[in-house]
Amino acid sequence: MITLHHLQNSQSFRIVWLLEELNIPYELKIYERDPKTRLAPAEFKSLHKAGTAPVITDGDLVLAETNAIVDYILDKYSDNNLRPKIGDSNRTDFLYYYHMGQGSLMPMLIMMVIFNALSAKAPLLLRPIIKKVATVAIASFPKPRVDALFNKINEDLANRTYLAGAELTAADIVTSFDLMTADKIKIVDFKKDYPNIATYLDNLKTLDSFKRANTKIGEE
Amino acid sequence: MITLHHLQNSQSFRIVWLLEELNIPYELKIYERDPKTRLAPAEFKSLHKAGTAPVITDGDLVLAETNAIVDYILDKYSDNNLRPKIGDSNRTDFLYYYHMGQGSLMPMLIMMVIFNALSAKAPLLLRPIIKKVATVAIASFPKPRVDALFNKINEDLANRTYLAGAELTAADIVTSFDLMTADKIKIVDFKKDYPNIATYLDNLKTLDSFKRANTKIGEE
Repeated sequence: MITLHHLQNSQSFRIVWLLEELNIPYELKIYERDPKTRLAPAEFKSLHKAGTAPVITDGDLVLAETNAIVDYILDKYSDNNLRPKIGDSNRTDFLYYYHMGQGSLMPMLIMMVIFNALSAKAPLLLRPIIKKVATVAIASFPKPRVDALFNKINEDLANRTYLAGAELTAADIVTSFDLMTADKIKIVDFKKDYPNIATYLDNLKTLDSFKRANTKIGEE
Repeated sequence: MITLHHLQNSQSFRIVWLLEELNIPYELKIYERDPKTRLAPAEFKSLHKAGTAPVITDGDLVLAETNAIVDYILDKYSDNNLRPKIGDSNRTDFLYYYHMGQGSLMPMLIMMVIFNALSAKAPLLLRPIIKKVATVAIASFPKPRVDALFNKINEDLANRTYLAGAELTAADIVTSFDLMTADKIKIVDFKKDYPNIATYLDNLKTLDSFKRANTKIGEE
Protein backbone atom coordinates (compact mmCIF):
# COMPACT_ATOMS: atom_id res chain seq x y z
CA MET A 1 0.00 0.00 0.00
CA ILE A 2 1.24 3.48 -0.89
CA THR A 3 1.80 6.01 1.87
CA LEU A 4 1.54 9.63 0.82
CA HIS A 5 3.55 11.96 3.01
CA HIS A 6 1.58 15.14 2.61
CA LEU A 7 3.21 18.41 3.55
CA GLN A 8 0.54 20.91 4.53
CA ASN A 9 -0.24 23.47 1.79
CA SER A 10 2.11 22.01 -0.77
CA GLN A 11 2.14 20.62 -4.27
CA SER A 12 1.36 17.19 -2.85
CA PHE A 13 -2.35 18.05 -2.90
CA ARG A 14 -2.32 16.71 -6.46
CA ILE A 15 -1.30 13.26 -5.27
CA VAL A 16 -4.13 13.13 -2.74
CA TRP A 17 -6.50 14.07 -5.56
CA LEU A 18 -5.02 11.44 -7.91
CA LEU A 19 -5.32 8.71 -5.26
CA GLU A 20 -8.92 9.73 -4.54
CA GLU A 21 -9.73 9.74 -8.26
CA LEU A 22 -8.31 6.22 -8.55
CA ASN A 23 -10.34 5.16 -5.53
CA ILE A 24 -7.57 2.96 -4.18
CA PRO A 25 -6.54 2.34 -0.57
CA TYR A 26 -3.61 4.46 0.62
CA GLU A 27 -2.26 5.84 3.84
CA LEU A 28 -2.14 9.59 4.29
CA LYS A 29 0.39 11.07 6.69
CA ILE A 30 0.08 14.81 7.16
CA TYR A 31 3.06 16.98 8.15
CA GLU A 32 2.44 20.49 9.45
CA ARG A 33 4.72 23.36 8.52
CA ASP A 34 6.58 25.30 11.18
CA PRO A 35 4.08 28.04 12.12
CA LYS A 36 6.81 30.72 12.04
CA THR A 37 9.14 29.78 9.17
CA ARG A 38 6.51 27.98 7.04
CA LEU A 39 9.20 25.36 6.35
CA ALA A 40 8.68 21.61 6.35
CA PRO A 41 9.43 19.85 9.66
CA ALA A 42 12.68 17.87 10.02
CA GLU A 43 10.73 14.60 10.02
CA PHE A 44 9.43 15.39 6.53
CA LYS A 45 12.80 16.55 5.21
CA SER A 46 14.47 13.37 6.37
CA LEU A 47 12.24 11.26 4.11
CA HIS A 48 14.05 12.06 0.84
CA LYS A 49 17.36 13.74 0.03
CA ALA A 50 15.69 16.30 -2.25
CA GLY A 51 13.70 17.62 0.71
CA THR A 52 10.77 18.51 -1.56
CA ALA A 53 7.06 17.67 -1.35
CA PRO A 54 5.39 15.40 -2.28
CA VAL A 55 6.99 12.15 -1.16
CA ILE A 56 5.47 8.68 -1.27
CA THR A 57 6.74 5.47 0.26
CA ASP A 58 5.75 2.00 -0.93
CA GLY A 59 7.54 -0.83 0.84
CA ASP A 60 11.25 0.04 0.57
CA LEU A 61 10.70 2.66 -2.10
CA VAL A 62 10.92 6.35 -1.25
CA LEU A 63 9.98 8.55 -4.21
CA ALA A 64 9.87 12.34 -4.63
CA GLU A 65 9.01 14.62 -7.58
CA THR A 66 5.34 15.14 -8.47
CA ASN A 67 5.24 13.72 -11.99
CA ALA A 68 7.50 10.79 -11.10
CA ILE A 69 5.01 9.90 -8.36
CA VAL A 70 2.05 10.33 -10.73
CA ASP A 71 3.69 8.03 -13.28
CA TYR A 72 4.65 5.50 -10.60
CA ILE A 73 1.06 5.37 -9.33
CA LEU A 74 -0.35 5.10 -12.86
CA ASP A 75 2.14 2.29 -13.62
CA LYS A 76 0.81 0.43 -10.60
CA TYR A 77 -2.88 1.23 -11.14
CA SER A 78 -3.26 1.27 -14.90
CA ASP A 79 -6.92 0.31 -15.31
CA ASN A 80 -8.08 3.86 -16.08
CA ASN A 81 -7.81 6.59 -18.71
CA LEU A 82 -5.86 9.09 -16.64
CA ARG A 83 -2.71 8.56 -18.72
CA PRO A 84 -3.71 8.12 -22.38
CA LYS A 85 -1.83 5.31 -24.05
CA ILE A 86 0.45 5.52 -27.08
CA GLY A 87 -1.80 5.90 -30.13
CA ASP A 88 -4.80 7.31 -28.20
CA SER A 89 -6.19 10.41 -29.92
CA ASN A 90 -5.66 12.55 -26.82
CA ARG A 91 -2.11 11.31 -26.17
CA THR A 92 -0.23 14.34 -27.57
CA ASP A 93 -2.41 16.94 -25.84
CA PHE A 94 -2.04 14.93 -22.65
CA LEU A 95 1.76 14.90 -23.00
CA TYR A 96 1.88 18.64 -23.61
CA TYR A 97 -0.23 19.61 -20.62
CA TYR A 98 1.15 16.95 -18.32
CA HIS A 99 4.72 18.16 -18.79
CA MET A 100 3.96 21.85 -19.23
CA GLY A 101 2.45 22.18 -15.78
CA GLN A 102 5.65 21.16 -14.02
CA GLY A 103 8.18 22.15 -16.68
CA SER A 104 6.95 25.63 -17.57
CA LEU A 105 3.96 27.01 -15.68
CA MET A 106 4.77 26.15 -12.05
CA PRO A 107 8.41 27.33 -12.31
CA MET A 108 7.27 30.74 -13.59
CA LEU A 109 4.62 31.02 -10.83
CA ILE A 110 7.20 30.17 -8.16
CA MET A 111 9.51 32.83 -9.61
CA MET A 112 6.72 35.42 -9.39
CA VAL A 113 6.03 34.47 -5.76
CA ILE A 114 9.72 34.71 -4.85
CA PHE A 115 10.11 38.09 -6.58
CA ASN A 116 7.01 39.40 -4.85
CA ALA A 117 8.38 38.27 -1.48
CA LEU A 118 11.75 39.99 -1.97
CA SER A 119 10.72 43.44 -0.80
CA ALA A 120 9.05 42.12 2.37
CA LYS A 121 12.40 40.68 3.46
CA ALA A 122 14.48 43.76 2.65
CA PRO A 123 15.33 46.46 5.21
CA LEU A 124 12.42 48.92 5.50
CA LEU A 125 14.13 51.81 3.73
CA LEU A 126 15.05 49.71 0.73
CA ARG A 127 11.63 48.17 0.22
CA PRO A 128 10.30 50.65 -2.36
CA ILE A 129 13.43 50.17 -4.51
CA ILE A 130 13.36 46.38 -4.22
CA LYS A 131 9.65 46.37 -4.98
CA LYS A 132 10.33 48.39 -8.15
CA VAL A 133 13.11 46.04 -9.25
CA ALA A 134 10.94 42.99 -8.56
CA THR A 135 8.04 44.48 -10.53
CA VAL A 136 10.29 45.16 -13.53
CA ALA A 137 11.82 41.67 -13.28
CA ILE A 138 8.40 39.99 -13.15
CA ALA A 139 7.17 42.02 -16.12
CA SER A 140 10.24 41.20 -18.18
CA PHE A 141 10.57 37.45 -17.52
CA PRO A 142 7.89 35.26 -15.90
CA LYS A 143 4.78 37.39 -16.60
CA PRO A 144 4.84 37.29 -20.43
CA ARG A 145 5.58 33.55 -20.31
CA VAL A 146 2.72 32.87 -17.92
CA ASP A 147 0.36 35.01 -20.02
CA ALA A 148 1.30 33.07 -23.16
CA LEU A 149 0.49 29.80 -21.39
CA PHE A 150 -2.82 31.11 -19.99
CA ASN A 151 -3.73 32.24 -23.49
CA LYS A 152 -3.03 28.85 -24.99
CA ILE A 153 -4.94 27.01 -22.25
CA ASN A 154 -7.89 29.40 -22.55
CA GLU A 155 -8.08 28.88 -26.32
CA ASP A 156 -7.82 25.08 -26.07
CA LEU A 157 -10.55 25.00 -23.41
CA ALA A 158 -12.95 26.74 -25.79
CA ASN A 159 -13.58 23.33 -27.37
CA ARG A 160 -12.84 20.92 -24.54
CA THR A 161 -13.99 20.12 -21.03
CA TYR A 162 -10.52 18.99 -19.91
CA LEU A 163 -6.98 19.89 -20.98
CA ALA A 164 -6.51 16.83 -23.18
CA GLY A 165 -10.11 16.54 -24.42
CA ALA A 166 -13.42 15.14 -23.21
CA GLU A 167 -12.01 13.09 -20.34
CA LEU A 168 -10.18 13.94 -17.12
CA THR A 169 -6.48 12.97 -17.25
CA ALA A 170 -3.47 13.32 -14.98
CA ALA A 171 -2.61 16.46 -16.97
CA ASP A 172 -5.63 18.14 -15.34
CA ILE A 173 -4.64 16.99 -11.88
CA VAL A 174 -1.10 18.34 -12.36
CA THR A 175 -1.71 21.55 -14.27
CA SER A 176 -5.02 22.76 -12.82
CA PHE A 177 -3.22 22.95 -9.48
CA ASP A 178 -0.95 25.58 -11.07
CA LEU A 179 -3.97 27.50 -12.31
CA MET A 180 -5.66 27.33 -8.90
CA THR A 181 -2.42 28.55 -7.33
CA ALA A 182 -2.24 31.48 -9.76
CA ASP A 183 -5.84 32.32 -8.83
CA LYS A 184 -5.17 32.02 -5.10
CA ILE A 185 -2.13 34.31 -5.14
CA LYS A 186 -4.11 36.76 -7.27
CA ILE A 187 -1.68 37.21 -10.12
CA VAL A 188 -4.55 36.83 -12.60
CA ASP A 189 -8.30 37.32 -12.84
CA PHE A 190 -9.41 34.28 -14.81
CA LYS A 191 -13.11 35.26 -14.85
CA LYS A 192 -12.24 38.55 -16.53
CA ASP A 193 -9.28 37.65 -18.74
CA TYR A 194 -9.49 33.90 -19.37
CA PRO A 195 -13.14 32.92 -18.88
CA ASN A 196 -12.71 29.38 -20.21
CA ILE A 197 -10.09 28.72 -17.54
CA ALA A 198 -12.45 30.06 -14.86
CA THR A 199 -15.23 27.73 -16.03
CA TYR A 200 -12.80 24.80 -16.23
CA LEU A 201 -11.60 25.33 -12.64
CA ASP A 202 -15.17 25.73 -11.35
CA ASN A 203 -16.03 22.44 -13.03
CA LEU A 204 -13.04 20.59 -11.52
CA LYS A 205 -14.01 21.76 -8.05
CA THR A 206 -17.35 19.94 -8.38
CA LEU A 207 -15.66 16.55 -8.94
CA ASP A 208 -16.15 14.10 -6.09
CA SER A 209 -12.48 13.13 -6.02
CA PHE A 210 -11.44 16.78 -5.73
CA LYS A 211 -13.87 17.38 -2.87
CA ARG A 212 -12.81 14.22 -1.04
CA ALA A 213 -9.13 15.20 -1.39
CA ASN A 214 -9.85 18.61 0.13
CA THR A 215 -11.81 17.09 2.98
CA LYS A 216 -9.05 14.59 3.74
CA ILE A 217 -6.28 17.15 4.06
CA GLY A 218 -8.47 19.80 5.67
CA GLU A 219 -7.17 22.63 3.49
CA GLU A 220 -8.88 24.94 1.06
CA MET B 1 9.50 13.09 -40.70
CA ILE B 2 10.02 15.23 -37.61
CA THR B 3 11.35 18.75 -37.97
CA LEU B 4 13.15 20.14 -34.95
CA HIS B 5 13.03 23.90 -34.75
CA HIS B 6 16.20 24.58 -32.82
CA LEU B 7 16.63 27.93 -31.15
CA GLN B 8 20.31 28.73 -30.83
CA ASN B 9 21.71 28.15 -27.32
CA SER B 10 18.48 26.83 -25.85
CA GLN B 11 17.09 23.81 -24.09
CA SER B 12 16.33 22.26 -27.47
CA PHE B 13 19.89 20.91 -27.62
CA ARG B 14 18.50 17.89 -25.78
CA ILE B 15 16.17 17.07 -28.65
CA VAL B 16 19.00 17.17 -31.19
CA TRP B 17 20.92 14.79 -28.94
CA LEU B 18 17.90 12.48 -28.54
CA LEU B 19 17.32 12.36 -32.31
CA GLU B 20 21.02 11.66 -32.91
CA GLU B 21 20.99 8.91 -30.27
CA LEU B 22 17.98 7.33 -31.99
CA ASN B 23 19.77 7.58 -35.32
CA ILE B 24 16.60 8.48 -37.19
CA PRO B 25 16.12 10.90 -40.08
CA TYR B 26 14.90 14.37 -39.08
CA GLU B 27 15.07 17.89 -40.36
CA LEU B 28 16.92 20.47 -38.31
CA LYS B 29 15.97 24.12 -38.68
CA ILE B 30 18.19 26.51 -36.75
CA TYR B 31 16.93 29.91 -35.53
CA GLU B 32 19.44 32.52 -34.42
CA ARG B 33 18.76 34.77 -31.48
CA ASP B 34 18.65 38.54 -31.90
CA PRO B 35 22.30 39.53 -31.35
CA LYS B 36 21.31 42.44 -29.08
CA THR B 37 18.32 41.24 -27.05
CA ARG B 38 19.24 37.50 -27.12
CA LEU B 39 15.52 36.85 -27.71
CA ALA B 40 14.12 34.32 -30.17
CA PRO B 41 13.25 35.73 -33.61
CA ALA B 42 9.59 36.37 -34.49
CA GLU B 43 9.63 33.45 -36.93
CA PHE B 44 10.43 31.08 -34.07
CA LYS B 45 7.90 32.61 -31.70
CA SER B 46 5.13 32.27 -34.26
CA LEU B 47 5.54 28.47 -34.32
CA HIS B 48 3.78 27.78 -31.01
CA LYS B 49 1.64 29.93 -28.69
CA ALA B 50 3.86 29.19 -25.69
CA GLY B 51 6.78 30.87 -27.46
CA THR B 52 9.26 28.51 -25.76
CA ALA B 53 12.03 26.33 -27.18
CA PRO B 54 12.16 23.54 -28.26
CA VAL B 55 9.40 23.09 -30.83
CA ILE B 56 8.94 20.20 -33.22
CA THR B 57 6.58 19.86 -36.15
CA ASP B 58 5.47 16.55 -37.61
CA GLY B 59 2.88 16.85 -40.38
CA ASP B 60 0.13 19.04 -38.91
CA LEU B 61 1.39 18.66 -35.36
CA VAL B 62 3.19 21.51 -33.63
CA LEU B 63 4.49 20.50 -30.22
CA ALA B 64 6.37 22.44 -27.53
CA GLU B 65 7.68 21.52 -24.05
CA THR B 66 10.86 19.47 -23.77
CA ASN B 67 9.54 16.35 -22.04
CA ALA B 68 6.35 16.27 -24.11
CA ILE B 69 8.56 16.23 -27.21
CA VAL B 70 10.81 13.53 -25.73
CA ASP B 71 7.79 11.35 -24.95
CA TYR B 72 6.26 12.01 -28.37
CA ILE B 73 9.47 10.96 -30.11
CA LEU B 74 9.84 7.86 -27.90
CA ASP B 75 6.20 6.93 -28.60
CA LYS B 76 6.98 7.07 -32.31
CA TYR B 77 10.40 5.38 -32.13
CA SER B 78 10.01 2.84 -29.34
CA ASP B 79 12.56 0.20 -30.36
CA ASN B 80 15.15 1.26 -27.78
CA ASN B 81 15.76 1.38 -24.01
CA LEU B 82 15.76 5.14 -23.63
CA ARG B 83 12.43 5.09 -21.77
CA PRO B 84 12.33 2.02 -19.51
CA LYS B 85 9.02 0.21 -19.66
CA ILE B 86 6.60 -0.46 -16.78
CA GLY B 87 8.12 -3.26 -14.70
CA ASP B 88 11.72 -2.68 -15.84
CA SER B 89 14.10 -2.60 -12.87
CA ASN B 90 15.31 0.92 -13.74
CA ARG B 91 11.82 2.34 -14.32
CA THR B 92 11.45 4.19 -11.00
CA ASP B 93 14.91 5.77 -11.08
CA PHE B 94 14.23 6.74 -14.67
CA LEU B 95 10.93 8.39 -13.68
CA TYR B 96 12.55 10.30 -10.85
CA TYR B 97 15.42 11.72 -12.90
CA TYR B 98 13.37 12.27 -16.04
CA HIS B 99 10.86 14.47 -14.22
CA MET B 100 13.23 16.02 -11.71
CA GLY B 101 15.36 17.64 -14.40
CA GLN B 102 12.48 19.72 -15.74
CA GLY B 103 10.31 19.90 -12.63
CA SER B 104 12.91 20.81 -10.00
CA LEU B 105 16.48 21.34 -11.15
CA MET B 106 16.09 23.51 -14.26
CA PRO B 107 13.53 25.86 -12.61
CA MET B 108 15.95 26.52 -9.73
CA LEU B 109 18.85 27.12 -12.14
CA ILE B 110 16.78 29.58 -14.18
CA MET B 111 15.86 31.40 -10.98
CA MET B 112 19.54 31.71 -10.06
CA VAL B 113 20.36 33.08 -13.51
CA ILE B 114 17.54 35.63 -13.34
CA PHE B 115 18.54 36.76 -9.84
CA ASN B 116 22.16 37.09 -10.90
CA ALA B 117 21.11 39.20 -13.88
CA LEU B 118 19.02 41.60 -11.79
CA SER B 119 21.82 43.90 -10.71
CA ALA B 120 23.20 44.27 -14.23
CA LYS B 121 19.87 45.73 -15.32
CA ALA B 122 19.49 48.12 -12.37
CA PRO B 123 20.61 51.77 -12.44
CA LEU B 124 24.34 51.99 -11.68
CA LEU B 125 23.99 53.46 -8.18
CA LEU B 126 21.58 50.76 -7.08
CA ARG B 127 23.61 47.82 -8.32
CA PRO B 128 25.45 47.01 -5.08
CA ILE B 129 22.15 46.95 -3.16
CA ILE B 130 20.40 44.84 -5.76
CA LYS B 131 23.36 42.49 -5.91
CA LYS B 132 23.17 42.05 -2.14
CA VAL B 133 19.44 41.34 -2.25
CA ALA B 134 19.89 38.85 -5.11
CA THR B 135 22.69 37.08 -3.25
CA VAL B 136 20.53 36.70 -0.14
CA ALA B 137 17.56 35.54 -2.21
CA ILE B 138 19.65 32.92 -4.02
CA ALA B 139 21.12 31.66 -0.76
CA SER B 140 17.72 31.39 0.86
CA PHE B 141 15.71 29.73 -1.91
CA PRO B 142 17.22 28.11 -5.03
CA LYS B 143 20.75 27.39 -3.78
CA PRO B 144 19.91 24.95 -0.94
CA ARG B 145 17.45 23.16 -3.25
CA VAL B 146 20.00 22.83 -6.03
CA ASP B 147 22.65 21.63 -3.56
CA ALA B 148 20.28 18.95 -2.23
CA LEU B 149 19.69 17.71 -5.78
CA PHE B 150 23.42 17.74 -6.64
CA ASN B 151 24.07 15.75 -3.48
CA LYS B 152 21.49 13.13 -4.35
CA ILE B 153 22.74 12.81 -7.94
CA ASN B 154 26.37 12.59 -6.79
CA GLU B 155 25.52 9.82 -4.32
CA ASP B 156 23.48 7.84 -6.83
CA LEU B 157 26.27 8.11 -9.41
CA ALA B 158 28.70 6.44 -7.01
CA ASN B 159 27.22 3.11 -8.08
CA ARG B 160 25.95 3.80 -11.59
CA THR B 161 27.21 4.97 -14.96
CA TYR B 162 23.95 6.70 -15.84
CA LEU B 163 21.20 8.33 -13.78
CA ALA B 164 18.86 5.33 -13.95
CA GLY B 165 21.52 2.62 -13.89
CA ALA B 166 23.86 0.92 -16.33
CA GLU B 167 22.19 2.18 -19.51
CA LEU B 168 21.71 5.62 -21.04
CA THR B 169 18.06 6.78 -20.84
CA ALA B 170 16.14 9.91 -21.75
CA ALA B 171 16.58 10.96 -18.10
CA ASP B 172 20.29 11.49 -18.86
CA ILE B 173 19.55 13.48 -21.98
CA VAL B 174 17.13 15.73 -20.09
CA THR B 175 18.86 16.16 -16.75
CA SER B 176 22.55 16.15 -17.72
CA PHE B 177 21.77 19.26 -19.75
CA ASP B 178 20.84 20.97 -16.47
CA LEU B 179 24.11 19.84 -14.92
CA MET B 180 26.12 21.05 -17.92
CA THR B 181 24.28 24.37 -17.69
CA ALA B 182 25.11 24.68 -13.98
CA ASP B 183 28.74 23.99 -14.87
CA LYS B 184 28.77 26.50 -17.73
CA ILE B 185 27.33 29.34 -15.66
CA LYS B 186 29.81 28.48 -12.90
CA ILE B 187 27.40 28.16 -10.00
CA VAL B 188 29.15 24.97 -8.93
CA ASP B 189 32.53 23.24 -9.18
CA PHE B 190 31.59 19.64 -9.83
CA LYS B 191 35.19 18.38 -9.88
CA LYS B 192 35.74 19.73 -6.39
CA ASP B 193 32.36 19.24 -4.71
CA TYR B 194 30.57 16.50 -6.65
CA PRO B 195 33.27 14.41 -8.35
CA ASN B 196 30.88 11.66 -9.49
CA ILE B 197 28.87 14.23 -11.40
CA ALA B 198 32.06 15.57 -13.03
CA THR B 199 33.02 12.05 -14.17
CA TYR B 200 29.47 11.40 -15.38
CA LEU B 201 29.43 14.55 -17.51
CA ASP B 202 32.89 13.85 -18.93
CA ASN B 203 31.66 10.40 -19.90
CA LEU B 204 28.53 11.71 -21.62
CA LYS B 205 30.60 14.11 -23.68
CA THR B 206 32.44 11.17 -25.22
CA LEU B 207 29.24 9.63 -26.61
CA ASP B 208 28.99 9.69 -30.41
CA SER B 209 25.41 10.98 -30.33
CA PHE B 210 26.41 13.87 -28.06
CA LYS B 211 29.33 14.83 -30.31
CA ARG B 212 27.21 14.61 -33.47
CA ALA B 213 24.53 16.79 -31.87
CA ASN B 214 27.10 19.44 -31.01
CA THR B 215 28.58 19.36 -34.49
CA LYS B 216 25.13 19.70 -36.10
CA ILE B 217 24.14 22.81 -34.19
CA GLY B 218 27.61 24.31 -34.15
CA GLU B 219 27.49 25.27 -30.47
CA GLU B 220 29.59 24.27 -27.53
